[in-house]
Amino acid sequence: MSDTCSASVGVIGSGAWGTALAAVAANAGNSVAIWSRNPQVVDDINNQHENALYLKGAALDPTIRATTDAKDLENADLLLLVTPSQHLRSVITPIKPLIDPDVPLVLCAKGVEISSGLLMSEMLEEVLPKNPLAVLSGPTFAIEVARDLPTAVTLACADAALGRKLANTLGSRAFRIYHSTDPVGAEIGGAVKNVIAIACGIVDGRQLGDNARAALITRGLSEIVQLGIAKGARRETLMGLAGMGDLTLTCTATQSRNYALGKALGSGEKLADYLKGRITVAEGLGSSKSVSALARKLQIDMPICNAICDVLHHQADIDQTIADLLARPQKAEF
Amino acid sequence: MSDTCSASVGVIGSGAWGTALAAVAANAGNSVAIWSRNPQVVDDINNQHENALYLKGAALDPTIRATTDAKDLENADLLLLVTPSQHLRSVITPIKPLIDPDVPLVLCAKGVEISSGLLMSEMLEEVLPKNPLAVLSGPTFAIEVARDLPTAVTLACADAALGRKLANTLGSRAFRIYHSTDPVGAEIGGAVKNVIAIACGIVDGRQLGDNARAALITRGLSEIVQLGIAKGARRETLMGLAGMGDLTLTCTATQSRNYALGKALGSGEKLADYLKGRITVAEGLGSSKSVSALARKLQIDMPICNAICDVLHHQADIDQTIADLLARPQKAEF
Repeated sequence: MSDTCSASVGVIGSGAWGTALAAVAANAGNSVAIWSRNPQVVDDINNQHENALYLKGAALDPTIRATTDAKDLENADLLLLVTPSQHLRSVITPIKPLIDPDVPLVLCAKGVEISSGLLMSEMLEEVLPKNPLAVLSGPTFAIEVARDLPTAVTLACADAALGRKLANTLGSRAFRIYHSTDPVGAEIGGAVKNVIAIACGIVDGRQLGDNARAALITRGLSEIVQLGIAKGARRETLMGLAGMGDLTLTCTATQSRNYALGKALGSGEKLADYLKGRITVAEGLGSSKSVSALARKLQIDMPICNAICDVLHHQADIDQTIADLLARPQKAEF
Repeated sequence: MSDTCSASVGVIGSGAWGTALAAVAANAGNSVAIWSRNPQVVDDINNQHENALYLKGAALDPTIRATTDAKDLENADLLLLVTPSQHLRSVITPIKPLIDPDVPLVLCAKGVEISSGLLMSEMLEEVLPKNPLAVLSGPTFAIEVARDLPTAVTLACADAALGRKLANTLGSRAFRIYHSTDPVGAEIGGAVKNVIAIACGIVDGRQLGDNARAALITRGLSEIVQLGIAKGARRETLMGLAGMGDLTLTCTATQSRNYALGKALGSGEKLADYLKGRITVAEGLGSSKSVSALARKLQIDMPICNAICDVLHHQADIDQTIADLLARPQKAEF
């Protein structure tokens, strides 16, 4: 990656968030190519300058090019990885030979891989061990970012100089990038937040009030902090945009998929009925399982995540689960 | 205070929060007296078992007694201080002779005293220096607490054993008390949150989106942390119920007075017009001034609190203020 601020940016993944980040990168003066496996999306972006399937209503910079050919990313100065987290390994593996080992990767997908129990950054270290890695995360609705509304995120890179360079390359007036040297800290919140959002939805569905929701968000952050620290993250990162910021947005955005799933369950709907006929699945459904397994492996107490896993995957009764959580001994907060 | 869990609890202040805490204390099996200067409130509580003026719709335990005579608190084992923060000194000072210096005080009012620049705990150290002090704070809508909906709070006391005893005395299944030994940390969030809530309302009134609000909440917490640490608080306390929990609730509860004030200003209303004819004033209006003055005195950078102070008290233009905040250099997050 050169020292100038303008760069050639490749975006792997053409969903709402990948498209919004392409808009951000173009807005900051870079040349941008999006790789998509969907020819219709490629055609829409190149000819209509809109991703009507995943980010309807956001006019894209006409200089953004979309392609179905991964070879078009070969000359990129940096790559943004923006696929759903459970698919990232299978998307990246076949195109490995095209990725120069010096090209920085900016990981924009967060999660614990169900098959391996690895964080996305750990999985990338297996698959592309030589590439410098940064993590971008924060409270971001894609459509607001694409519309250039004010947004702040964390960009974390162990190499502070590279992190600053990446922040300068991608940041703009409305897309404020705070840099950090704690990539694991920037990643861990995003991997857990959807589980806590399901819990908040359940509490809302059961009409337990805003106090209960705020308590869940706070104790949820406490679980994220414990998991993060076990994984080597710094506590302060988890107080920031990628931790409490993203968690707060996800847990108070009642229209989000995870919150909606929780609310349906809290209102008495059965999981199987709710899932019938849905194409997109709330990410927290899978991550409740992988997070809970990871907590067990690391011997960390994550009562909220465990409770959601039990409700979603082991037919636990919701009222009994809530009663059990409330019956836990009252203890020191930290 | 005896070692048994059941105690005689005196509550100073009969607003919504004082009444809800009286309900909590009675619910936990204590005998409770509320001191009020309003004979109508006293009569309502004693005869209708409701505080119709301040907490309409919550049925109170008939054992709760209200009184206009402070002498009725003389035999209390502990006292809850629940007046508006700017009035606490003037309420407490005349009844000092009635307060035994061994009686623990549980401070439930948070704020920076405008006249002195002192936190409530610092002011109490001046007025009642001998009494053991604890701070109770967290994300709490009074009406939900009075209705026994699940709520979690922090109770902080430098004397850990006393703190645990107080938590055992006041806590119940639905009113979960986490204890801490960091009273300043438990107090500081509540003193600043209303200012950040005004900022969130302004951003909402200007339709700047949920990302911007989440960023404000997160960077607002960062300002609270800086102020807290300068005052001797521990960072972790500010990540807890009394810090980020209370902040999140206040900044996402669109019906709150502070948020509503901000939203009106963000929508173009003039402050003077908004305040005309209102009896209750949003607390953040005063605390923006006292917090900003304290930050200046302690040489701490609190750009959001300063901006709100400028908008409310120095006729700063809202759009220019937002532009200035967005033009700040993008930097390390912590």
